[in-house]
Amino acid sequence: MARRIIVIGSGAAGMSAASAARKASSDAQITVFTEDEDIAYSPCAIPWGIEGRSGWDEIVMHTPEFYEKERNIKVVTRTRVESVDGDAKTVTADGQTYPYDALVIATGGRVFVPPVPGADLANVFVVRTVRDGKDIQAALKDVDSVVIGGAGVIGLELAVAIREMGKDVTVIEMMDQVIPRIADKDMADEIQEHLESKGIKFVMKAPIQAVNGDGEVSSVTAAGQEYPCGLMIFATGVRANLDIPKALGLDVGQLNALIAAPTLNAYRRGRLVPDVYVAGDLVQCESAVMPGATMSQLGSTAVRQGLVAGNNAAGGEKKLFGPVASPWVSVIGDKQIAGTGLSLGLASWYGIDTATGSASGLTRARYYPGGKELRVKVIADRTTHRIVGAQIIAGEEATGRIDWLTSAIVNGMTAEDFLMRSENAYCPPTSMVRDVVIAAVEDLCRQL
Amino acid sequence: MARRIIVIGSGAAGMSAASAARKASSDAQITVFTEDEDIAYSPCAIPWGIEGRSGWDEIVMHTPEFYEKERNIKVVTRTRVESVDGDAKTVTADGQTYPYDALVIATGGRVFVPPVPGADLANVFVVRTVRDGKDIQAALKDVDSVVIGGAGVIGLELAVAIREMGKDVTVIEMMDQVIPRIADKDMADEIQEHLESKGIKFVMKAPIQAVNGDGEVSSVTAAGQEYPCGLMIFATGVRANLDIPKALGLDVGQLNALIAAPTLNAYRRGRLVPDVYVAGDLVQCESAVMPGATMSQLGSTAVRQGLVAGNNAAGGEKKLFGPVASPWVSVIGDKQIAGTGLSLGLASWYGIDTATGSASGLTRARYYPGGKELRVKVIADRTTHRIVGAQIIAGEEATGRIDWLTSAIVNGMTAEDFLMRSENAYCPPTSMVRDVVIAAVEDLCRQL
Repeated sequence: MARRIIVIGSGAAGMSAASAARKASSDAQITVFTEDEDIAYSPCAIPWGIEGRSGWDEIVMHTPEFYEKERNIKVVTRTRVESVDGDAKTVTADGQTYPYDALVIATGGRVFVPPVPGADLANVFVVRTVRDGKDIQAALKDVDSVVIGGAGVIGLELAVAIREMGKDVTVIEMMDQVIPRIADKDMADEIQEHLESKGIKFVMKAPIQAVNGDGEVSSVTAAGQEYPCGLMIFATGVRANLDIPKALGLDVGQLNALIAAPTLNAYRRGRLVPDVYVAGDLVQCESAVMPGATMSQLGSTAVRQGLVAGNNAAGGEKKLFGPVASPWVSVIGDKQIAGTGLSLGLASWYGIDTATGSASGLTRARYYPGGKELRVKVIADRTTHRIVGAQIIAGEEATGRIDWLTSAIVNGMTAEDFLMRSENAYCPPTSMVRDVVIAAVEDLCRQL
Repeated sequence: MARRIIVIGSGAAGMSAASAARKASSDAQITVFTEDEDIAYSPCAIPWGIEGRSGWDEIVMHTPEFYEKERNIKVVTRTRVESVDGDAKTVTADGQTYPYDALVIATGGRVFVPPVPGADLANVFVVRTVRDGKDIQAALKDVDSVVIGGAGVIGLELAVAIREMGKDVTVIEMMDQVIPRIADKDMADEIQEHLESKGIKFVMKAPIQAVNGDGEVSSVTAAGQEYPCGLMIFATGVRANLDIPKALGLDVGQLNALIAAPTLNAYRRGRLVPDVYVAGDLVQCESAVMPGATMSQLGSTAVRQGLVAGNNAAGGEKKLFGPVASPWVSVIGDKQIAGTGLSLGLASWYGIDTATGSASGLTRARYYPGGKELRVKVIADRTTHRIVGAQIIAGEEATGRIDWLTSAIVNGMTAEDFLMRSENAYCPPTSMVRDVVIAAVEDLCRQL
């Protein structure tokens, strides 16, 4: 009999898993259950959708009909999985019971909304689904001022998108910097200043205490001050969605996310569960930088995990998911900010003493028109001299440079080794003869 | 007494060496001799200078006066070093004798002009110095049609620049593809078609037999056909300039360039010469991909070698120059082409059996406007599965991606290891959620 594979969740991880399962097995019976109405889109696209830069129909790459017709994958939308029986190997949804041979849990994360009064008022949103994006876009038509709770990359991208629509925008952040945790304060402050120059207001070190209004939000209170607004969006981070895994008794790690084997099998009481796979925002990863756990929660990671989990669930030639450095990039106004590995804050979480090097220059030869500013910061472990992190702010071409540094990190290069063995391709319109990345590592070597 | 350092050559290698020597030693007495009239510029800039996209004054970054005043480095221009006495440790130039404690030879390469009749006619040029560029630019004013001999990257960049100036341009190439040796034919053909669509004509498999004219060039004969033109440029590759090294008896390698230690000391009869350093286009490098020799002859390599040679010549804390993968990139019309490590042709030179993987996609998320086509080809050694080379054609952002792949190559990653452990930063405006580079390596794994 054909292998029955059930995938719960239709985001980057779930749909990648379903497609990889089909690639590995032409006759498997593959069913995806999702509470969402749209599938196979990137939540990272939503700010651009709200601004109207990308159309919703393009953002949603494929429909359930496409999966049915092109890949023989059945996608059941708007349907909550009520329970999973790990012993009987069945999933119950909509009152019906479906047996599985392999289960992929890819229910992702949900936006963490702080438990404050008024969070359920009208015109208060989170931003996770295309439906959220469409609702925000519609509601913005009648609104002049917006408060965004949370200055992470999604919060900042939203702030720019909504500011571009001519609205008054205030970002309220609990920490003392934007992009907390993954960006260092000096890099974050440069981004904040850039956004302030575009008229976006920031309220820092201000936990949100209440959302106020009569039926509909009219202001937000943070650190004792009141900020009037007609619409409020919580972009306050994502927590692993553990309802189903917890009901199944799967092992949860130190970071409150699922522990997984390199094959992406889940564990139960320390034992690998051979027929249950996990992928996406609810998985706790191993760090490629330091021995220990880390959260990745990136679309790129979700896709990579989905491909491994789906392939293995379908009995394909076994694939492994490796430790992660979790490179990220965000386009915020006219600047790109990117990072990889450990920020100074994350490094201190691992107890590492760090040294940093930095350099500034241009993205092109000095004499070639159109070059943009480029600032690179590189972080090493003082004990081993290994490069453990990097951050870049640039007017263009930050992504490839951060991927390059990611490769150096996952390969365990020391700063000195990088300086001796790293090369950059050079052409006046695309780089300086000695790229700023290399100059930053040279500076790092001087600090070690 | 302060250490006396003499540098011969004022290109990327020579001037980097002089500056690094000054950084390593505040009191060294540093003198640079050069036959050139301009110093410290990148020959790669010349096509852009001819087109007028970059000004000659900007291309020449620093003057001798700058070096004298800012770095206390004496630069003697328009002066040929007549001889070097390795035993007495002196250099003779302009009839005067200068003693040295350390010598850096950075005389680079010279354009190879095939020994054909008429190569010395008026309006026949090579392109190596800013003077060449200015002369070509001036001569082009009175000319309608141009022949370029050689379809390497400089030849093609020149072809585009001169075509943009409204001239009729014919490129004549001996081999059956453009960018021979470092690009594979399938990639090269795509670039050639792109240039043909811009009206540039190509004559392939046609060795140049004669340059014809009465005082001034009026046509070029290649493979028995005559091609009329008012100006001709040889862009037929660079050969190591070995006059001084040969007079000194320095060891020359298999590829007819200087053998150097990782410290960039030269050798004489198999023994390291402690007071003579070499850097730039005349150095034979070690390959980072396979055991064996390779030529790099890139501006980026010259700078990296200059920094090591100059530092060590000045007695700084010892630095080493590592083996090279030699990433390169060229902007040719609306396309960027980049490569690293071994092409299929170079792989066969090392006797390697290869497998290739490839993928196509976009430089941005499919739904994000402005994305450009991106094609990635990755080459592995069938025996070890190590990634040994890669090539990219893209509308934008090829450089960072090729630097990323270079890092994978110099770290000895296999295709399978790359697939398990490589990550890309993702944001809709700068990449697909799973970058085309990773998709290409996945295809490569299937071929292995």
